Amino acid sequence: MRTVFWDSDRHTLKMIDQRRLPWEFSLAEFDDYTTVAGAITQMVVRGAPAIGAAAAFGMALAAQQSAAADRAGMLRDLETAAAHLNAARPTAVNLAWAVKRLLRAAADPALVDPDAIRAALLDAAQQIADADVALNRRMAYHGAELISDGDTILHHCNTGALATVDWGTALGVVFAAHEQGKRIRVLVDETRPRLQGALLTAWELQQRGIPFDLIVDNAAGHFMRTGQVNIVLVGSDRTAANGDVANKIGTYKLAVVARENGVPFYPVVPTSTIDLELAHGDLIPIEERSAAEVTTVLGRPIAPAGSSARNPAFDVTPHRYVTGIVTEVGVIYPPFIRHLRAAVERAEREAHHD
Amino acid sequence: MRTVFWDSDRHTLKMIDQRRLPWEFSLAEFDDYTTVAGAITQMVVRGAPAIGAAAAFGMALAAQQSAAADRAGMLRDLETAAAHLNAARPTAVNLAWAVKRLLRAAADPALVDPDAIRAALLDAAQQIADADVALNRRMAYHGAELISDGDTILHHCNTGALATVDWGTALGVVFAAHEQGKRIRVLVDETRPRLQGALLTAWELQQRGIPFDLIVDNAAGHFMRTGQVNIVLVGSDRTAANGDVANKIGTYKLAVVARENGVPFYPVVPTSTIDLELAHGDLIPIEERSAAEVTTVLGRPIAPAGSSARNPAFDVTPHRYVTGIVTEVGVIYPPFIRHLRAAVERAEREAHHD
Repeated sequence: MRTVFWDSDRHTLKMIDQRRLPWEFSLAEFDDYTTVAGAITQMVVRGAPAIGAAAAFGMALAAQQSAAADRAGMLRDLETAAAHLNAARPTAVNLAWAVKRLLRAAADPALVDPDAIRAALLDAAQQIADADVALNRRMAYHGAELISDGDTILHHCNTGALATVDWGTALGVVFAAHEQGKRIRVLVDETRPRLQGALLTAWELQQRGIPFDLIVDNAAGHFMRTGQVNIVLVGSDRTAANGDVANKIGTYKLAVVARENGVPFYPVVPTSTIDLELAHGDLIPIEERSAAEVTTVLGRPIAPAGSSARNPAFDVTPHRYVTGIVTEVGVIYPPFIRHLRAAVERAEREAHHD
Repeated sequence: MRTVFWDSDRHTLKMIDQRRLPWEFSLAEFDDYTTVAGAITQMVVRGAPAIGAAAAFGMALAAQQSAAADRAGMLRDLETAAAHLNAARPTAVNLAWAVKRLLRAAADPALVDPDAIRAALLDAAQQIADADVALNRRMAYHGAELISDGDTILHHCNTGALATVDWGTALGVVFAAHEQGKRIRVLVDETRPRLQGALLTAWELQQRGIPFDLIVDNAAGHFMRTGQVNIVLVGSDRTAANGDVANKIGTYKLAVVARENGVPFYPVVPTSTIDLELAHGDLIPIEERSAAEVTTVLGRPIAPAGSSARNPAFDVTPHRYVTGIVTEVGVIYPPFIRHLRAAVERAEREAHHD
């Protein structure tokens, strides 16, 4: 079952409710784009690719909901829905990208009436979802070449099926290695403050029967220094042209300690999140989230009332700590400034041939 | 008020109950050495120096409780109490050291009757407590020389008054710099799994009006890389002859990232915890504590039922990452192999002159 999918019998969008995991597996059902936007805000769905697909299906729902009698009225209703969905999590790049793509599909002059637009939008959303899964599979098999039988893999945050439409990015590499019959073990960083490792990655590994040990983020260095880690795999929210990687807070420290101990460090990155316009990582703005994420755990206070806190959600890992970058067109090695551009161009050519 | 102190009106031992902090400040009172042992096990009191003092007063209570009519009977009762207290937390070096010192005091042949032994043991326990406070003050003023007006100090775990009889080690340096009127700010690592930073260090800083920001352990690297940290101060449970430092899990990663960014890294270490018999840090056994500390936070699960976890409580920081070691006889710099031995010898000479 996909994290985000269309129920064609009921004409609704369904999503795994990630706020209840790992204690309860439940599906949330949506027939209204405004509740889809609310679900994105409340993190029923999270992970950039999953949010993109949810927003695309949200646009398809908006077309269904529209009572417009003509093409112009439908396009006006879709503009309203687009603005609403875009505001759900303004910093999520895939969200804006998916909404824009659906608006462009709707504007096709060949679509002469509202029903044609409704059908086209559902098609376009389904294509986004299917393309995400296909792309993750390609990345995973490139990345799995890096994993040997018997390896212990250190993983940060959640980059699995739950962060995407299905399968995942860095965790997708783990799934592929497991599928190939390699005996692997995963050290799962719990990933404070939001505990995506403990809550979601542990659950995904458990579901697939892949052996893992949960660790506190503080323990990763000890396991690397004592020779108990063979490779570090992480995701990336945004990668600069020179290979600097912005990812979940704590990634930078893993990369530094990995290099210090000769442990290879690989971000797993769809080329769509490589920003060739961005010269280096320090140009990436670091979102600072609510202090309450630090002063509480699952809603319960862990610090004295009135404690001040800082909560940068991401950090930047300079490219000198990056061994290689796994993409859907293969594993990219330094010099990144040249090879990443070539990879993005190749991915765009291949997408055109699809 | 001290963390561990003798109430001479009531002839009881009193300790701040650290399990209730920061939500409730309460004192636990003890007139029975077996409940003192229980309090050590249940971590009413924690931190090696504080545990040592608690055990010493526990021995003094055992002497009070003993109904022995003669010296030999009293010594037998004290041996029983010593075995019981030693078992409370078998890995705590200061505990065994304090109990042994009290047994030696009791065995003084000049003490001819049980009452003389009772008085001598209370004196010996009080001396251990007073010596800890005096030593922490000396360390703090040596360490405060390293702090400049306007500095931001990164601190791990709890090393304050609550970890000692009073004042503290690494956090004692912070208190001394504040007392000197330096305007400082502390970045407080929350220190999973047991959250001593969030629960205890934040509370101690708040009590003293020292500005601080709580951060998740994952965020320390980001603040160092972006030039927002001037110095890292940590404690040490055990230091090897070559300057390798065993301390709370997560210390190693801080040291590596600090060196990478040119941030000075100083453990604050009483010479009593420097083990000259230990050639290097990898000879220090790393205690692995209960998986439940990782899979829960304040007793509440944060991972799927049945999750496996690894929980090393300490890690080893090789001396090449250590800028200097703050002791009660001054700040020690490399080559540690020579300078630590000299520091220990000097501390022993000075203790003899006291």
